[in-house]
Amino acid sequence: MRIPIAEIQRVARLALEQSGCNSENATAVAHVMAAADRDGCASHGLFRLPGYLAALRSGKVNGKANPSVVRLAPSVLQVHGSRGFAPISMNAARQELEPLARQQGIAAAALVDVHHFSALWVDIEPLIQRGLGAFCFTAYMPVVAPAGATHPFFGTNPMAFGWPRADGGSMIFDQASATMARGEVMIAARDGRELPLGVGLDVAGMPTKDPAAILSGVLLPFGGHKGSAIALMVELLAAGLIGQPFSVEAGEEDNGDGGPPRGGVLLIAFEPRHFGDPDGWLAHSEAFLERLSRLDDVRLPGQRRAACRAQSDRDGAEIAPAVWEFALRASSDCGSVL
Amino acid sequence: MRIPIAEIQRVARLALEQSGCNSENATAVAHVMAAADRDGCASHGLFRLPGYLAALRSGKVNGKANPSVVRLAPSVLQVHGSRGFAPISMNAARQELEPLARQQGIAAAALVDVHHFSALWVDIEPLIQRGLGAFCFTAYMPVVAPAGATHPFFGTNPMAFGWPRADGGSMIFDQASATMARGEVMIAARDGRELPLGVGLDVAGMPTKDPAAILSGVLLPFGGHKGSAIALMVELLAAGLIGQPFSVEAGEEDNGDGGPPRGGVLLIAFEPRHFGDPDGWLAHSEAFLERLSRLDDVRLPGQRRAACRAQSDRDGAEIAPAVWEFALRASSDCGSVL
Repeated sequence: MRIPIAEIQRVARLALEQSGCNSENATAVAHVMAAADRDGCASHGLFRLPGYLAALRSGKVNGKANPSVVRLAPSVLQVHGSRGFAPISMNAARQELEPLARQQGIAAAALVDVHHFSALWVDIEPLIQRGLGAFCFTAYMPVVAPAGATHPFFGTNPMAFGWPRADGGSMIFDQASATMARGEVMIAARDGRELPLGVGLDVAGMPTKDPAAILSGVLLPFGGHKGSAIALMVELLAAGLIGQPFSVEAGEEDNGDGGPPRGGVLLIAFEPRHFGDPDGWLAHSEAFLERLSRLDDVRLPGQRRAACRAQSDRDGAEIAPAVWEFALRASSDCGSVL
Repeated sequence: MRIPIAEIQRVARLALEQSGCNSENATAVAHVMAAADRDGCASHGLFRLPGYLAALRSGKVNGKANPSVVRLAPSVLQVHGSRGFAPISMNAARQELEPLARQQGIAAAALVDVHHFSALWVDIEPLIQRGLGAFCFTAYMPVVAPAGATHPFFGTNPMAFGWPRADGGSMIFDQASATMARGEVMIAARDGRELPLGVGLDVAGMPTKDPAAILSGVLLPFGGHKGSAIALMVELLAAGLIGQPFSVEAGEEDNGDGGPPRGGVLLIAFEPRHFGDPDGWLAHSEAFLERLSRLDDVRLPGQRRAACRAQSDRDGAEIAPAVWEFALRASSDCGSVL
């Protein structure tokens, strides 16, 4: 079924408020869920609402978080999330990081003490649309086996990179260093779809196509030891560097409520005009991207999302009926007893 | 055959001087070749000497380059390579970037107008050993097909990431966004070794195990569309951002002498003490890396290189006889007529 984006956002916000979020936090979290569904990424959309609500009800997450920003060095910010969901801290981070990156050329923001479920492309897109480039990294809970191993150790550990386009749009990739995001495996399990070999192993460490077996077993990194190295880098940047739990540690401390674990996010932004080609960089890069997209069967990162977005804005976003029913019930007055 | 590192470096330096390098440039380039052979990476070692010499003889590369450094923004440097080989510009970049990163928390150096063949882990290791973290990116010439395509467009586009260890050592990965570095394919072709399917395509766009067919055809990115996205990011950072040629452009402007093309390098360094956990980050990360390396069959990035280095320091580095003979001839007085 297709639901208008504004309606997804309204219902998600109400559900979050019913479970203890204040209005600012509920609005920020509802926005990222609606944005993910709008772009055709169900695994980070309203599908995550039960997890968000569980984390509020268990008391793991503070639904009234009021983030604060500290300057750690001339080009480094720290955003304290006060145990809240990440989106409201992301808003604060972007607001302060944007002018800092413009001034310094490159700058970083370390988000700490946040609970992260959201899609990184949603987190960085506003910076890219305002003409900055950016990287973003976050760890998770142990669900991926390092190359060579058969047991969970790394998180799915997404990394996003965004680059501004001449039309004010953005080219963003946001990819798990696992072969597949865990949410996608969850959705395949729900829908009873087989996955290709190579996505993950079962509890005995054997290759399997069964998404349920992978969820109780382990995901594999994309591209073997090279993807595994990317996953390791993400752990070091989003945990070791900024004083936050590594995925294995987040798994150990988490209360198992199904909501997002505590963790950190590292965001790095840069102002392309300060890198030596202030007048030429944009046209030069546009010509390159044009040339790339003219190659047979090549799709620029984000092209599928852009097509979904256009359709969602016209017809509403595709939502699984059970997901929508849950959201409606959770947003009603009795939502808090779900 | 095994040759002492100092001897590799001496012979390489003489050969470069015979073909027109001044002493500073010859020393810097000879150092990176010897360092690559020392770490068991033949594809970036003395094996590259013919290409370096060809680029000097054709006049493409300035063997007497004297790089200069400009501050583009509070946290951004530009290093002008004056058409020289990259290593001497890398020395200048590291020298200025290190104090800047310590002061600002994070800082970048854009190397422009350099010719790059060397191994990125050699380029960043001195920064990591001095306690900084770093990223490094460089493009090349069009030899890799973007995911979905069958014709060369991206360079091999390596990306390196380094993280300091408590013992003063470093954890560095340096990986082509191609399945395999082009130098490794060249060596497989030389040695008549088959490669696994998936490394590349022949000129007709068909999968092949023959390294020679891949060299005239095209390499593939590692990990499908995710590795392809990394390759695209490297193009944008090492070319579009800093006003340098994209790999396709470098291929078009190159004179085909077999030496390294003109291009840029982006280096980003950060001071971990400025990211919010100044007293804990190192011990916390060490505990994590220890735990990771205790998993069955997991190898930390750089472990194989470290083992090779220990053996090379004891017994000399393994050099193919033909490579050594070429270097000896090139380093003799008649080297310039080779």
